[in-house]
Amino acid sequence: MDRQISLKFLLAATLTVVTGIAAAADPLVSWNEGAARSAIVDFVQRITDENSPDFVPVSERIATFDNDGTLWVEHPMYTQLAFALDRVRELASQHPEWKTTQPFQAVLENDLNALAAAGEKGLLELVMASHAGMSTADFRAIVINWFNTARHPRFKRPYTELTYQPMRELLWYLRANGFKTYITSGGGIEFMRPMTEEVYGIPPEQVIGSSIKTKYQLVDGKPVLMRLPEINFIDDKAGKPVGINQFIGRRPIASFGNSDGDRQMLEWTAAGEGPRLMMLVLHDDVDREYAYGPANGLAKTPFGTFSESTMDEAKKNGWVVISMKNDWNQIFSAEN
Amino acid sequence: MDRQISLKFLLAATLTVVTGIAAAADPLVSWNEGAARSAIVDFVQRITDENSPDFVPVSERIATFDNDGTLWVEHPMYTQLAFALDRVRELASQHPEWKTTQPFQAVLENDLNALAAAGEKGLLELVMASHAGMSTADFRAIVINWFNTARHPRFKRPYTELTYQPMRELLWYLRANGFKTYITSGGGIEFMRPMTEEVYGIPPEQVIGSSIKTKYQLVDGKPVLMRLPEINFIDDKAGKPVGINQFIGRRPIASFGNSDGDRQMLEWTAAGEGPRLMMLVLHDDVDREYAYGPANGLAKTPFGTFSESTMDEAKKNGWVVISMKNDWNQIFSAEN
Repeated sequence: MDRQISLKFLLAATLTVVTGIAAAADPLVSWNEGAARSAIVDFVQRITDENSPDFVPVSERIATFDNDGTLWVEHPMYTQLAFALDRVRELASQHPEWKTTQPFQAVLENDLNALAAAGEKGLLELVMASHAGMSTADFRAIVINWFNTARHPRFKRPYTELTYQPMRELLWYLRANGFKTYITSGGGIEFMRPMTEEVYGIPPEQVIGSSIKTKYQLVDGKPVLMRLPEINFIDDKAGKPVGINQFIGRRPIASFGNSDGDRQMLEWTAAGEGPRLMMLVLHDDVDREYAYGPANGLAKTPFGTFSESTMDEAKKNGWVVISMKNDWNQIFSAEN
Repeated sequence: MDRQISLKFLLAATLTVVTGIAAAADPLVSWNEGAARSAIVDFVQRITDENSPDFVPVSERIATFDNDGTLWVEHPMYTQLAFALDRVRELASQHPEWKTTQPFQAVLENDLNALAAAGEKGLLELVMASHAGMSTADFRAIVINWFNTARHPRFKRPYTELTYQPMRELLWYLRANGFKTYITSGGGIEFMRPMTEEVYGIPPEQVIGSSIKTKYQLVDGKPVLMRLPEINFIDDKAGKPVGINQFIGRRPIASFGNSDGDRQMLEWTAAGEGPRLMMLVLHDDVDREYAYGPANGLAKTPFGTFSESTMDEAKKNGWVVISMKNDWNQIFSAEN
């Protein structure tokens, strides 16, 4: 081994160890001192202190996390939409009719205006064409392959490295304090599950999300679950408390989101008896990530809208708003 | 205290302690020696032995259990049907039209022939009338109250005491060996959850079942989930693998059922790679519980049918059939 490289390697290894020790000492090392960090630490101390009137038994320590924009990047578009567009491009040779059929034509021609004009109905058609018609096992393999090869257009990294390091620390911190952590996302449950355990430490049975219907079939005598082009459940907005109740059957005591789609989840969490923690991530860091609202005068966006009225509800109810710019000294897990 | 009673009490307490010690020594004390018991113990030893080629890591140790007829009594009718009939009787004064409307009239007149004639559609009407139209919190209170007061017509015990002691031992034995145990029942998820933790040690988030739709609403500014008279999901037959995939996202390595409704769950479990355990409880003990099939020449029944063709599939595939009569030296938990 070249001596200079060897020294460099040793130095890097030492730094990794030192960083590791620092992380052990402070589980929330990527969080700056401030109201957001204090709200987390105070809440956890109160509910884990057996002598506190706010003590919560371990079985009731349920925390739910939105995914897109709360745990990982959702701009310039939802990661799953990027996946759907890539799938449509890949399948196009089997569908010559897509060249002249919207919304597929828009995807193949990279015509974002035509894609926008196709609206929600158009997006649904793209999802059905790209997410249905195969077994759950085949879909899983497709998703894993995509995560291994796709790169974010701005950060040139795998999407799984564009998860927010402070939120990952929060997940581990809560679990170290007896919490069961769940994802409750508008995104597809089968799109998330192949990566949540490795990236967030969240096993598949703690992932709640939108889904299409599946059908049990015997293929060559072997049972498979075929994915059908039919919506089963939309886990967004008023669907989030419905999904939480269906999957968990208990009310969370802490919930984390970033957009209008998370309001009802936070309301549902807040309405329970006893101590509660509701937090919303505000994307106000155009340099290190993105800045969008339109709350606080930030730019409008179709992906992860944080409206003025959600901000009003947060202020009125004491929900804690996390400023990416001020509260986080590191954004992405990739920087580790 | 009367001296005789006091001695009796002491004797009973001593016996309880002795039984407790015996149970600690043999976690499956209610199981007689035989093929069923051996199949369980051999399987668990193989998959927990790190030096065995059949070793399964803890995260993959998922076991799914049907409820009606597998974990608790389902005759003379499903417990939830008894609940629905009681609810209809209780609500009848608010519905004078039920006196002359089927299937309600049949319930109020105890006319089992007319009830049977109403068929599946009639049963669905009874369920909707008795299970919907209130919040999830109110329904939970109704269910808990019913469990506290209802008694089984033959055994004169609360239904929660008519759970099968050998199966409860099996649940605890599997969990002591790193398994996560799930219920996967055709019964209602919200009907089971109020009692599964206490009776089976299974928390609400590990209960999968049939469900009706719920809707998030603000009532006097407070969020509630209202139960709607609309089927959401039927967790039976081919629905069981669908429900397992949706809620757990992993394939079980062990599954336990007792009827035709469990076949697809066992097929789905069996079709995975590596060691598997599939078992079916056969109700062949007319003295201590009930005897029905029609497999093995037992009586036909509309509740928990175990058909000849299911028996054939079990034999062909090496699924283990548990004989209540021969394999269990105790039936109900109530006898403890």
